[in-house]
Amino acid sequence: MELGQTVSLLERTPATLDALLRNLPDVWTRQNEGVGTWSAFDIVGHLIHGERTDWMVRVNALLQFGPDHTFKPFDRAGHATQIEGRTLAQLLDEFAQLRSESLRALHALNLQPEDLERQARHPAFGPVTLSQLLATWAVHDLTHLHQISRVLAHQYADAVGPWKKYLGVLHCDGHSGPV
Amino acid sequence: MELGQTVSLLERTPATLDALLRNLPDVWTRQNEGVGTWSAFDIVGHLIHGERTDWMVRVNALLQFGPDHTFKPFDRAGHATQIEGRTLAQLLDEFAQLRSESLRALHALNLQPEDLERQARHPAFGPVTLSQLLATWAVHDLTHLHQISRVLAHQYADAVGPWKKYLGVLHCDGHSGPV
Repeated sequence: MELGQTVSLLERTPATLDALLRNLPDVWTRQNEGVGTWSAFDIVGHLIHGERTDWMVRVNALLQFGPDHTFKPFDRAGHATQIEGRTLAQLLDEFAQLRSESLRALHALNLQPEDLERQARHPAFGPVTLSQLLATWAVHDLTHLHQISRVLAHQYADAVGPWKKYLGVLHCDGHSGPV
Repeated sequence: MELGQTVSLLERTPATLDALLRNLPDVWTRQNEGVGTWSAFDIVGHLIHGERTDWMVRVNALLQFGPDHTFKPFDRAGHATQIEGRTLAQLLDEFAQLRSESLRALHALNLQPEDLERQARHPAFGPVTLSQLLATWAVHDLTHLHQISRVLAHQYADAVGPWKKYLGVLHCDGHSGPV
């Protein structure tokens, strides 16, 4: 995990989601994959919630409290009340602002290579390093970009007719856990 | 399949890939998932090749030659020589320009609802409609956005440590066929 490489990905996610989703018709962005699944709108809400309560919160806790500290579990349903009644454009703006603040705070920590090996405890699987936490933040972005492309494609699963068997995204059952 | 809905997705793909990939370090964009797989760079090349030889070519052939016409198979390796020695920035520019031209040509056809039910033959599975072809074009974009997110994530499959089991994108084996 090279910090600059990780940041280069983290800083692109808001603009990527903006280009893909802003002003895209609701028929794409508000539909999900069935009961209990998320729409693209829900996923942006989840990313906002992670930005507020998870990533930099854990980075700071790890640095402040050290290897005996156990992270608070991340509430995967935590975004539900925050997205109610809002527009996707508002969520995209908010995510971009929060991510920018997170990366400014990360930069201000002036992390050194040896800091990346410092540890805290994940509530489910124990010791993790700062390096792993930062790598996970980036891959978490990618897992949700992956999910959004799948949720959008799902809306056309029948419309493509016999091509369905050739389109990998329509056969993906990749799911993410609670992080 | 509603034409405006389909176009709204197709027209966003170049900017989405641009936001995600332009100036992203080569360590993300030039790596693949192993022998015989594609990097993000290769995938943008493949999208360019599809734009040149597949989508609007098939739309026009269907309209011109009708239900007895069989589409030429799409050459999935066709982009290899075209991307050699080029930069990702050049490919992103070229894809954006070609997609823009494709959508201008599509718009100029002034397709009516009854046109969408017109047919031609796919070389592997026979009769397909224009509606299915246009839906497939959009989902093909999404399947490659899905693939790019997976190929990028793959580069950090080890870096995330024990979080790996929670990150769906690291467990996806979704593959696309020849379209």
